[in-house]
Amino acid sequence: MRPSQRNPDAMRVVRLTRGYTKHAEGSVLVEFGDTKVICTASVEETVPSFLKGKGQGWVTAEYGMLPRSTGSRMRRESAAGKQSGRTQEIQRLIGRSLRAVIDLAKLGERQIVIDCDVIQADGGTRTASITGAYVALADAIAGLIRAGKLDASPLRDQVAAISVGIYQGQPVLDLDYPEDSACETDMNVVMTGSGRFVEVQGTAEGEPFSEEEMLAMLALARKGIGELLQLQRQALAG
Amino acid sequence: MRPSQRNPDAMRVVRLTRGYTKHAEGSVLVEFGDTKVICTASVEETVPSFLKGKGQGWVTAEYGMLPRSTGSRMRRESAAGKQSGRTQEIQRLIGRSLRAVIDLAKLGERQIVIDCDVIQADGGTRTASITGAYVALADAIAGLIRAGKLDASPLRDQVAAISVGIYQGQPVLDLDYPEDSACETDMNVVMTGSGRFVEVQGTAEGEPFSEEEMLAMLALARKGIGELLQLQRQALAG
Amino acid sequence: MRPSQRNPDAMRVVRLTRGYTKHAEGSVLVEFGDTKVICTASVEETVPSFLKGKGQGWVTAEYGMLPRSTGSRMRRESAAGKQSGRTQEIQRLIGRSLRAVIDLAKLGERQIVIDCDVIQADGGTRTASITGAYVALADAIAGLIRAGKLDASPLRDQVAAISVGIYQGQPVLDLDYPEDSACETDMNVVMTGSGRFVEVQGTAEGEPFSEEEMLAMLALARKGIGELLQLQRQALAG
Amino acid sequence: MRPSQRNPDAMRVVRLTRGYTKHAEGSVLVEFGDTKVICTASVEETVPSFLKGKGQGWVTAEYGMLPRSTGSRMRRESAAGKQSGRTQEIQRLIGRSLRAVIDLAKLGERQIVIDCDVIQADGGTRTASITGAYVALADAIAGLIRAGKLDASPLRDQVAAISVGIYQGQPVLDLDYPEDSACETDMNVVMTGSGRFVEVQGTAEGEPFSEEEMLAMLALARKGIGELLQLQRQALAG
Amino acid sequence: MRPSQRNPDAMRVVRLTRGYTKHAEGSVLVEFGDTKVICTASVEETVPSFLKGKGQGWVTAEYGMLPRSTGSRMRRESAAGKQSGRTQEIQRLIGRSLRAVIDLAKLGERQIVIDCDVIQADGGTRTASITGAYVALADAIAGLIRAGKLDASPLRDQVAAISVGIYQGQPVLDLDYPEDSACETDMNVVMTGSGRFVEVQGTAEGEPFSEEEMLAMLALARKGIGELLQLQRQALAG
Amino acid sequence: MRPSQRNPDAMRVVRLTRGYTKHAEGSVLVEFGDTKVICTASVEETVPSFLKGKGQGWVTAEYGMLPRSTGSRMRRESAAGKQSGRTQEIQRLIGRSLRAVIDLAKLGERQIVIDCDVIQADGGTRTASITGAYVALADAIAGLIRAGKLDASPLRDQVAAISVGIYQGQPVLDLDYPEDSACETDMNVVMTGSGRFVEVQGTAEGEPFSEEEMLAMLALARKGIGELLQLQRQALAG
Repeated sequence: MRPSQRNPDAMRVVRLTRGYTKHAEGSVLVEFGDTKVICTASVEETVPSFLKGKGQGWVTAEYGMLPRSTGSRMRRESAAGKQSGRTQEIQRLIGRSLRAVIDLAKLGERQIVIDCDVIQADGGTRTASITGAYVALADAIAGLIRAGKLDASPLRDQVAAISVGIYQGQPVLDLDYPEDSACETDMNVVMTGSGRFVEVQGTAEGEPFSEEEMLAMLALARKGIGELLQLQRQALAG
Repeated sequence: MRPSQRNPDAMRVVRLTRGYTKHAEGSVLVEFGDTKVICTASVEETVPSFLKGKGQGWVTAEYGMLPRSTGSRMRRESAAGKQSGRTQEIQRLIGRSLRAVIDLAKLGERQIVIDCDVIQADGGTRTASITGAYVALADAIAGLIRAGKLDASPLRDQVAAISVGIYQGQPVLDLDYPEDSACETDMNVVMTGSGRFVEVQGTAEGEPFSEEEMLAMLALARKGIGELLQLQRQALAG
Repeated sequence: MRPSQRNPDAMRVVRLTRGYTKHAEGSVLVEFGDTKVICTASVEETVPSFLKGKGQGWVTAEYGMLPRSTGSRMRRESAAGKQSGRTQEIQRLIGRSLRAVIDLAKLGERQIVIDCDVIQADGGTRTASITGAYVALADAIAGLIRAGKLDASPLRDQVAAISVGIYQGQPVLDLDYPEDSACETDMNVVMTGSGRFVEVQGTAEGEPFSEEEMLAMLALARKGIGELLQLQRQALAG
Repeated sequence: MRPSQRNPDAMRVVRLTRGYTKHAEGSVLVEFGDTKVICTASVEETVPSFLKGKGQGWVTAEYGMLPRSTGSRMRRESAAGKQSGRTQEIQRLIGRSLRAVIDLAKLGERQIVIDCDVIQADGGTRTASITGAYVALADAIAGLIRAGKLDASPLRDQVAAISVGIYQGQPVLDLDYPEDSACETDMNVVMTGSGRFVEVQGTAEGEPFSEEEMLAMLALARKGIGELLQLQRQALAG
Repeated sequence: MRPSQRNPDAMRVVRLTRGYTKHAEGSVLVEFGDTKVICTASVEETVPSFLKGKGQGWVTAEYGMLPRSTGSRMRRESAAGKQSGRTQEIQRLIGRSLRAVIDLAKLGERQIVIDCDVIQADGGTRTASITGAYVALADAIAGLIRAGKLDASPLRDQVAAISVGIYQGQPVLDLDYPEDSACETDMNVVMTGSGRFVEVQGTAEGEPFSEEEMLAMLALARKGIGELLQLQRQALAG
Repeated sequence: MRPSQRNPDAMRVVRLTRGYTKHAEGSVLVEFGDTKVICTASVEETVPSFLKGKGQGWVTAEYGMLPRSTGSRMRRESAAGKQSGRTQEIQRLIGRSLRAVIDLAKLGERQIVIDCDVIQADGGTRTASITGAYVALADAIAGLIRAGKLDASPLRDQVAAISVGIYQGQPVLDLDYPEDSACETDMNVVMTGSGRFVEVQGTAEGEPFSEEEMLAMLALARKGIGELLQLQRQALAG
């Protein structure tokens, strides 16, 4: 029995709210149950120096958590003077995931910076971030097209992400915090709209896992991501 | 004429939403028009080392802005590796303002950390932060009383803050961003429920100001803070 | 009775010594009683990047304290790896105060950097710094005129600063350290030669203050700054 | 055809040299072809503060590359003042992999710190590090047993790691640098001696990958890790 | 001919002014011609953690330069966020030099921190610092004896320092800045009152130097240090 | 009697292994007994900004120690976020020593960066680094000549370094760690092939030393460096 009473293959309620704040070119509040992340997309008409003159654009991401987004207060990273290893891992993952579905040459010499800021955490903040960030990115690109700066969308596919794991010996979908902190294995899966993998990151927190367990987790992930892709399409159509 | 069409002595719509996030002992979304700040109060059963064994508590504050809370994206302070001088000034001001209305000895040997995180900025983020932080602090203290950890509230008074300024030669109340970036003088005023000053910080951005102008600004501030104190009481009674 | 036996409206002996060190374009030792600050002005024929090509100059300030300028040794900020919030607040205040009396367009595309280094502290270091920095700045500008790099002075007015406060219920002028560490309210006032305010920063350290107390403090500040402006003129005429 | 002329399922020559340096409790030079990493294990009779008094030990890892271990010189991280996100990701991975096969309670209240320093890089430094680190860890534990500080080994299993990928449409084992920088997908797999997964990290660098491709990569990884586990046993028996 | 017209074996005018600032237990302004350094000694009744419970004391030093102590303004190290390699070299040298003449066991479990801050630089700041620091240290120790905290002085000898060099082929004593920036070789010599060496640091800035040149420089250093030791005794007797 | 049973004027076995790693333009493993340092020379076709357009090149050095190159593990400097004062002193010394024997104008507008990384420490790491770095530098320059980028070598002389000291009252050559940590005086000497000094750095760790002792140490150093110069020539001829 899961702490939330959900079935093993049941996701939490997911909401994608576009236009959440007013300044950014794309701004989405993504909620996976009690996990809430603000994802903004900022368009900058320059590229990082390593891409100057290469005739292509860039998409990058930064991630942060409000100090009291969690059960006990975390130290503010700006006060600590550096980002933790975990923060850097997550923001690198978000950036790679988005770059996997965009044609950077078609984006032109501009950069889109995605900021994912967790205002309330209950497990799955990185996968919620990727799922919401895609919608913010799509909104920013739609704005570039409306403004006549792009003729066609450089997006080649959708991308969404979900966590799966082994909790009390049972493969489960969309771990919340009580499951995440007690599970044997935690796997984050990033997939495209066409059903291919961008990232698979499975970690045994306790017992190492078997290939059968991995396949069961991947099947759950495929189901969950299918639902997320549908929700993204609905949100963008709204 | 103000860009927002407001009268010189008119504030923006102010909202105080308690219980905005679920983990913190106090959690308030404060809105001054389009300025939106999440204020949380976190109770910690320890005190900073300089207060160990002194038989008193502490209240401190930290402040941050989401990178795209503003019109153009700001660099994330955790990525820059340090907090700006402006950030430090503001969080020191919030902390002093709250400590002015609390009896630290009655709080006992515990610390309450206030986090003010701006999710959307349109001028007046520091005064909105102080106004919202008071409500979050009051909620955290109410929780300590309910939990039997405090017999009575160590709060001695309310505290709220507003900005005033000289805009195109005219004293005005509650500057929004278009006014703030073009005004001659900007003054932040922090007052208690009993009508006394905790902080007065007036800065000539352009022309130095006269004593008459200062008195006119203070009168506006007194009016605005009166309204904020009333809204705080309503929110806490709600 | 003040610890120093001074009358409530009496300043400490103030001295301004020009040409204190030999390398800087302006170099002043300012003494407010036992508070001693070296203020230098360095002319640089470049501007910060945010002003490149804008046809105007810049004035900025940095502030520091020798580790043993104080009663007990403070940690050296360069060893700590960062400037404290207090240091940043003060150097931002000094910079703003000086920029309020200079026409940056007339200064041309150059920067004047003011360094204020406290070699002995006894209260009022920031107001002494502003008062001395103005003289160093004036000396540096006089040098630019002598060298034919400027036709006329871009200075529009004088500027000086003093602290006032409420000490044992009594408004007093020019707080020394024993008063500063025990007062109820501390206010720093920066005024121009024409009697207008550049900055007013009042802080209740203990009891919040009334409007009447603020007006009494401002009157004392106006008297003290009048004396400082006179001393600046004498020093520059010397 | 692979650049190295290897068959798709062929690993490079792997060597494990124990006792490579003299000070550390375990010291191994691990070579995967031209990739060379020094792995040391240092026993410390204290635990990190978050484990004080918990009756268990800890294993952690740090990773670095000599500035000219690579084709063009990289900036030295100590001179840059921080470790890159990549470095932190890798050292967290090494630490987790080793902790998966050790009973921390049986280790007692002590810490073993693994340092993996790359002296020559040609792809696969993180998987070589894990493979060599296990041997260094085993040596350090053998020393604790010889010294009478442990009765039995807290190691529950072996652990080794290998990279696999899709290179020019073909699943291949043990990518060297020319493959790693041109492959479509890169996957790092960490397995125990009993054939279960500790970590699976697959990343599409170019095209997203299918489930079939993932299964093919996992099969290659299983074959390669089998060979590595055998080499570890031979080295430790030597 | 030296730029200053001094004879090869002539030092600049040296002055040692005790009691230069009021807070420190020892406070000396040392002047070697236009080089001016404030040396303070601060007594702290604790020792660094590596000496806790060892029954001995410690003497350490920190060094800094005011940004405009030099001909062109240097970046403030606290703003840069770190001390330069040169600064660290110098403060380590000052600390070692002073520890060479004090019996740390007799000092008891306390630390004396020496701060050497250059307010005007014209060559030889590190040797002036050592020479002045000894006097500040002696004053601080005299204060400990007067206060009954020490029965006898832990100082075993005097220590002073001077720079020598090869300037235009000629060995010269006490290099000023024009010589220091143009000399072939620069040597800093630290000697005790008994004529033994604590430190000899010779560096060929241009041409490597011969053993004969080194002996000539050492003879000049011995002469100069003899004069400095005499000035220290006079200052402390004054 | 020395701990190693060596005669006072006997060096440890010294080995210079060229081509130690494959990527760098020069790569040397230098061994002084159990002290082992990897020295690489990296050629970069740019110069630091302070030399842009000056028509000359630059040689600089960086130094590091693997955390467990020493008897007890040292904190990794990249994790600490800064290089220690000792590290900075040593890398500045290596750079100066190499620049003393190269004609930077003849090198052309390029930089050679020397990295000295200690993989095992047993005293004398800085002098081993200089001795090995010269060979790596010579190899890199030979490569530039072979590639037609230089017509002739800009090297004007050889350079090598050795430590000498007073151990139990006796001058000794080439201190190993047991001697280094117990000696009264430690002196590092850097000499050219023509027998002139580049650096002499003598430090009394315990008792100050006499001029006679210094001369005895210099004679030992001259003998040892003569042997090192010979080994360098043999290595480069090999």
